[in-house]
Amino acid sequence: MSATPLRVPVEGLAEGAATLPDDAARYVTRVHRLGPGARFVAFDPARAVEADVEVVSSDRRATRVITGPLRPASVRATQGLTLVQAIGKGDKLDEVVRDATELGATRVVPVLAARSIARPTDGDARSRRWRRIAIEAARQSGRGDAPEIEVPTSVADAIGRFATGRGVVAVCLDPTSAVPLGRVLARLAAADEAVVVVGPEGGLDDEELQAADRAGVARVSLGAFVLRTETVCAAVLGAILVARGAGEGDR
Amino acid sequence: MSATPLRVPVEGLAEGAATLPDDAARYVTRVHRLGPGARFVAFDPARAVEADVEVVSSDRRATRVITGPLRPASVRATQGLTLVQAIGKGDKLDEVVRDATELGATRVVPVLAARSIARPTDGDARSRRWRRIAIEAARQSGRGDAPEIEVPTSVADAIGRFATGRGVVAVCLDPTSAVPLGRVLARLAAADEAVVVVGPEGGLDDEELQAADRAGVARVSLGAFVLRTETVCAAVLGAILVARGAGEGDR
Repeated sequence: MSATPLRVPVEGLAEGAATLPDDAARYVTRVHRLGPGARFVAFDPARAVEADVEVVSSDRRATRVITGPLRPASVRATQGLTLVQAIGKGDKLDEVVRDATELGATRVVPVLAARSIARPTDGDARSRRWRRIAIEAARQSGRGDAPEIEVPTSVADAIGRFATGRGVVAVCLDPTSAVPLGRVLARLAAADEAVVVVGPEGGLDDEELQAADRAGVARVSLGAFVLRTETVCAAVLGAILVARGAGEGDR
Repeated sequence: MSATPLRVPVEGLAEGAATLPDDAARYVTRVHRLGPGARFVAFDPARAVEADVEVVSSDRRATRVITGPLRPASVRATQGLTLVQAIGKGDKLDEVVRDATELGATRVVPVLAARSIARPTDGDARSRRWRRIAIEAARQSGRGDAPEIEVPTSVADAIGRFATGRGVVAVCLDPTSAVPLGRVLARLAAADEAVVVVGPEGGLDDEELQAADRAGVARVSLGAFVLRTETVCAAVLGAILVARGAGEGDR
């Protein structure tokens, strides 16, 4: 893994000569101390493209580079995977965004559930922060794309917008359900867009569960062990990743 | 979940009148302020038994209780699941022990891999700490048992002791493997004892991988995304939990 080239996220990546955006310039020249002639791989997570880049010059004001031809990112999610996740206490969603990015999520929808204890009022700022976390996690995991991070919304709105439609199979974790996740996993994994709804520590309330029922979101259980909400994310996304055949012919 | 009775781990739980051990007494009377007449469920994670308990009296020196008949823990792991996990930086293994307990592990073997950065010399003290974390995670997840935590050892020793034998199916995560985990998951999940070996951030070295090969431990990949070692644990144990049918008839 030490042979892996340095990967740097660059928004609006384009072939040719350019000045690196400030963040990327700082990362390349200060953190990694690359100078003229050094090479790295830049990726644009919003478009899932990447390119080889060479540093041409660097001083206090600007780092100039030449970017080679863009190519599709070599490592990226190839099937849709949306995580609708209740915002938990403190920084829990930071960790969930990191895990979800490593495990192939293509969209994260933070929701304020009826029983969510945290009720942030600065939703837009939070989403920007989670976007930065997702891009950094994408960089670390070698992904050339990153999950989209929505602005926090209600469970019912998230289900209405993301858990229905053609090619979508959606499940909602409900510890009281008699349906084990294993029973629908193959169908979920085969979907163009798999959607997983994870409630807060106290679970989704009746109204939220009914919204799920009405939208055709299957209530499923992970068994008798009570899991923390962040463990649910990694466990379920891990099960989907494996069921989708991760590792089949990608090396 | 608020209707769930208070659960308290008590080592050496026995039917009849007794004085609660100090830890349990503090937890029951100080943290939860239970007084005479109050009831809770005590569980002995080492033996996976539990019992209803009534507080008889409580003062500064002692909390006396009457313990009802012992019964097998209602929620417990029913198949063996051993996690052999390289010790990572800082407190990472704390989080891994928590996740593994929630996801049904019955044994955690911390290993000092060749590429482990952390090299603790106080292995016994660390294991005691991880045991306490496992018992607390068992309490929170409603389990009446807890994974055994071994004393840190080498990868080769852990494989020799835990990854071979009758009824054991073992895998070792290796990002360079051409075998996806999904291809062996059913066999792993069906095993009396599933063993998962997870290396440190830099991966297992050649010698360790060869020890795995010699012991018949299958090298498997989770795909092209580079995962942090703690994410690997939750993802793989989640996949096994689901494949073992968690949620089938346990309510």
